[in-house]
Amino acid sequence: MSPATENDDEQPAWQKTKSKKAALQAKAIQPFLDQPPNAVYNTITAIADVEELATRIAKREFTAHDVVSAYIRKAAIAHQKTNCLTEVLFSDALRRANELDAHLAHHSTPIGPLHGIPITLKDQFDVQGSDTTLGYSGRAFAPAARDAVLVEMLKGMGAVVLAKTNLPQSIMWCETENPLWGLTTHPLNPAFTPGGSTGGEGALLVLQGSLVGWGTDIGGSVRIPAHMCGLYGFKPSSGRLPYHGVPVSTEGQEHVPSVVGPLARSLASVHLVTKAVIDAKPWELDPKVLPLPWRGHAYREMQSRPLVFGLLIDDGVVKVHPPIERVVQEVAAKLREAGHEVIDWDATGHAECIRIMDQYYTADGGEDITRAVSAGGDPFLPHVSALVNRAPAISVYEYWQLNRAKVAAQKAYLDKWRRIRSPKSGREVDVLLTPTMPHSAVPHRACRWVGYTKVWNFLDYTACVLPVGRVDRRLDVARTAAGVAGYVPRSEIDRWNWSLYDPEGMEGMPLSVQLVGQRLEEEKVLGAAQVVERLLRMSSS
Amino acid sequence: MSPATENDDEQPAWQKTKSKKAALQAKAIQPFLDQPPNAVYNTITAIADVEELATRIAKREFTAHDVVSAYIRKAAIAHQKTNCLTEVLFSDALRRANELDAHLAHHSTPIGPLHGIPITLKDQFDVQGSDTTLGYSGRAFAPAARDAVLVEMLKGMGAVVLAKTNLPQSIMWCETENPLWGLTTHPLNPAFTPGGSTGGEGALLVLQGSLVGWGTDIGGSVRIPAHMCGLYGFKPSSGRLPYHGVPVSTEGQEHVPSVVGPLARSLASVHLVTKAVIDAKPWELDPKVLPLPWRGHAYREMQSRPLVFGLLIDDGVVKVHPPIERVVQEVAAKLREAGHEVIDWDATGHAECIRIMDQYYTADGGEDITRAVSAGGDPFLPHVSALVNRAPAISVYEYWQLNRAKVAAQKAYLDKWRRIRSPKSGREVDVLLTPTMPHSAVPHRACRWVGYTKVWNFLDYTACVLPVGRVDRRLDVARTAAGVAGYVPRSEIDRWNWSLYDPEGMEGMPLSVQLVGQRLEEEKVLGAAQVVERLLRMSSS
Repeated sequence: MSPATENDDEQPAWQKTKSKKAALQAKAIQPFLDQPPNAVYNTITAIADVEELATRIAKREFTAHDVVSAYIRKAAIAHQKTNCLTEVLFSDALRRANELDAHLAHHSTPIGPLHGIPITLKDQFDVQGSDTTLGYSGRAFAPAARDAVLVEMLKGMGAVVLAKTNLPQSIMWCETENPLWGLTTHPLNPAFTPGGSTGGEGALLVLQGSLVGWGTDIGGSVRIPAHMCGLYGFKPSSGRLPYHGVPVSTEGQEHVPSVVGPLARSLASVHLVTKAVIDAKPWELDPKVLPLPWRGHAYREMQSRPLVFGLLIDDGVVKVHPPIERVVQEVAAKLREAGHEVIDWDATGHAECIRIMDQYYTADGGEDITRAVSAGGDPFLPHVSALVNRAPAISVYEYWQLNRAKVAAQKAYLDKWRRIRSPKSGREVDVLLTPTMPHSAVPHRACRWVGYTKVWNFLDYTACVLPVGRVDRRLDVARTAAGVAGYVPRSEIDRWNWSLYDPEGMEGMPLSVQLVGQRLEEEKVLGAAQVVERLLRMSSS
Repeated sequence: MSPATENDDEQPAWQKTKSKKAALQAKAIQPFLDQPPNAVYNTITAIADVEELATRIAKREFTAHDVVSAYIRKAAIAHQKTNCLTEVLFSDALRRANELDAHLAHHSTPIGPLHGIPITLKDQFDVQGSDTTLGYSGRAFAPAARDAVLVEMLKGMGAVVLAKTNLPQSIMWCETENPLWGLTTHPLNPAFTPGGSTGGEGALLVLQGSLVGWGTDIGGSVRIPAHMCGLYGFKPSSGRLPYHGVPVSTEGQEHVPSVVGPLARSLASVHLVTKAVIDAKPWELDPKVLPLPWRGHAYREMQSRPLVFGLLIDDGVVKVHPPIERVVQEVAAKLREAGHEVIDWDATGHAECIRIMDQYYTADGGEDITRAVSAGGDPFLPHVSALVNRAPAISVYEYWQLNRAKVAAQKAYLDKWRRIRSPKSGREVDVLLTPTMPHSAVPHRACRWVGYTKVWNFLDYTACVLPVGRVDRRLDVARTAAGVAGYVPRSEIDRWNWSLYDPEGMEGMPLSVQLVGQRLEEEKVLGAAQVVERLLRMSSS
């Protein structure tokens, strides 16, 4: 970003907006950095589970005011370190915390299951009275008239919104940078990306500046920052959680549906908030949500029997880095030891899915994103230029033919799922076990391949990311030196990815596995995630 | 249609195709007309309930062969009378009936819940080895390679496909005529339409030529022929019953979704086949079907308590004819007498829904339908010309904006449903009670307004049509002569509709009511339909 000049008239409109927003943001944060920390703050923010914190607030071990103050302090520090926040709502949050404390004092029961729980939102969710910028300066200073349905529901359950968080220009990117709010960095290394597009949440959560973050995912945007930052991230199928009141680039393109999903510091938190929202009947408020109550029996059933996992380690396009392969194989080995079946799953159909889905993103010739960027006169970031110029607009008739191809590819994948059986038990696969990304966190602007996440958006399947270990030079290089040196890349993109592997630079970066179920199998995937989680925590303790 | 000339070269290609298809059809039907009827045939075809017939076949009271033979005879006669069939599969059906009889003899149990039940399909459903013409000559002589998912499932349960049935050119019409197969007429009056687009099924079923007919509905195409012919017709929400393998005009336009639904001669049959298909887990075969098991508790619950009906008699655009208003009010009165609440419901939002949805049908500038008609060189019927020339194609960007407007209108309707409460009990409406069409069956090419059905497609709500009485000059004219004479139409379309009212010409034509529930409330709507049905049969007995 070019520095502001003395003469305001020489400054482009978007830079003036940027300066104004930055000044307002600093003003909203500064008072909280100046306050001395309370001794109890670190105790509070160390609690990763929503249920535990909610219980301790309900028992009046902590006031909501203390909880929110503790989180505000960590959020302010996280922002100084990573530039993760956009709209800052700290004062509102404290006001709401006081109300909640008064409610509890008066009624002796919490207002709902999330009473006093600090949450944050990717800067796409409408919050009444705040901007929803999406990272576009043209959307600044146009506060939302009402809360998004999800925000309305979460507030109704007692959650306290602390802030909104950064995302990339166009949203369609797996890193986090835009001209209005700048670049968000990885908590462990400022030269690295926290991933994206929900990257602000990733950086903030891992620095304990929030307990639950809400993002959106159309190609991996919840799962990728979860993977790179070491968090739990959940992508339901579309129609399960309410999207109403969440503006998005290419809005109206509903064939590769963007979905909302939570990121959190524990699997139990992901499970709790997902279930809480579904239990509150979001289909009564959002016409796109399906009237599908929480299916606790499916969640429990997955934890009651040996499961069949389909193991997909290589998508045939971009080979994963050695640390990625290591942790996925480690999880597979632990599952086998525990009596589960792990069978091979291949990438048949993935290339066709991706070939079709890429055409949706630019079916309008980039018009929607171009309009959004141009509305404020923002400069185009290189990946956004590339996206909007990738292909000319197609006709509505061609768009309909694309949908036909989509349904055919989805049917082929469904038939594949029916066909593949465990050679031992003859059973179908319950969930897939696969990498999230072909690499751990990488330097800024190095991400290029999201094929391990996006294919599940195209199929509208359910996916959950769990943190599993870290890049470890001793384990990874020792194990794979011959392979790393001798690997012959299959293509330019595969070569690029392989060239990114840097055991020294990546040392200590988080790793993950991704579990994938079929469409609308949220309970099943979360149940399987619980099985994996229990195995992992058992072996690490 | 112009007669075939002696010189084949002077005949356009579509007429040659038409002649060939007509000759093949006649050849497939004639042998069955020549056979003498069996004494038991009328006993068999008088049975309107799937369950009763299936039970009597399972008990070997009737063979599947006798059942299918009886239905073939009635279907052949129905076709002579109304021109309702397209592809005729009588010989295949008898072969299958013999297999089923052999199975039952050998195993002593039926092959499935529809063992030996004769069914028919609108000529959109792929049946392996038969054409799926959609009424386009360009699609003739291109047999389907495999069964549609629904057909595969029904066959697997023991149903026997007798024939496929006629539909209008473009499918997007509420009557039934195309150049390839000609005009289908109403069983009670050849000058009248049986409705459409599933008009072939309507005519066939009411003449007892089938026990269950399957159609599609994107604006009323199952419900309108049910209404005009005096049948039960059911339109589920999209994603409940499998559409895979059912080609349709404007395929790929998924925002106003076409759905499949059954027509039958009893409500119990509609309920049974809908439940049977859902119980067989269609989501394992069709990627667009939601994994939503049959919710018997919701079906039963509706039959266990006083319900709240929202009464919508006038959509504010086209006032219904006196007989329509009479039967809807009669049903409302019976419901009130039986202890249910019937409260007012208005048409707020309907005009906006229809304004938006009409733009989807022609978003491609008519390209899809023009291609389909032109592929075989078919002449355009006037309503199809009008449709494809109604508006130029819009851009994909504009199409996306249309989707945004759609979601906003759906949200407004959802909020309306939440807001309207019974003044007495304070409860929300369970289902709406409304007309299906503004008129009973009318002379060919007179239908113009389907606003009472199409709005529910836009909202993707669930709707069921039940036959209720008939046009009765004594009741209707006596009751409304002043109104009929003095009514001042609100608009050109309202004037047109009012001018169609002809108590003499319409005498004896069937009437219906439509029950409407929210999205994916199939069980609820069928449960409410059962409540209405019981009241109606009680009072008529």
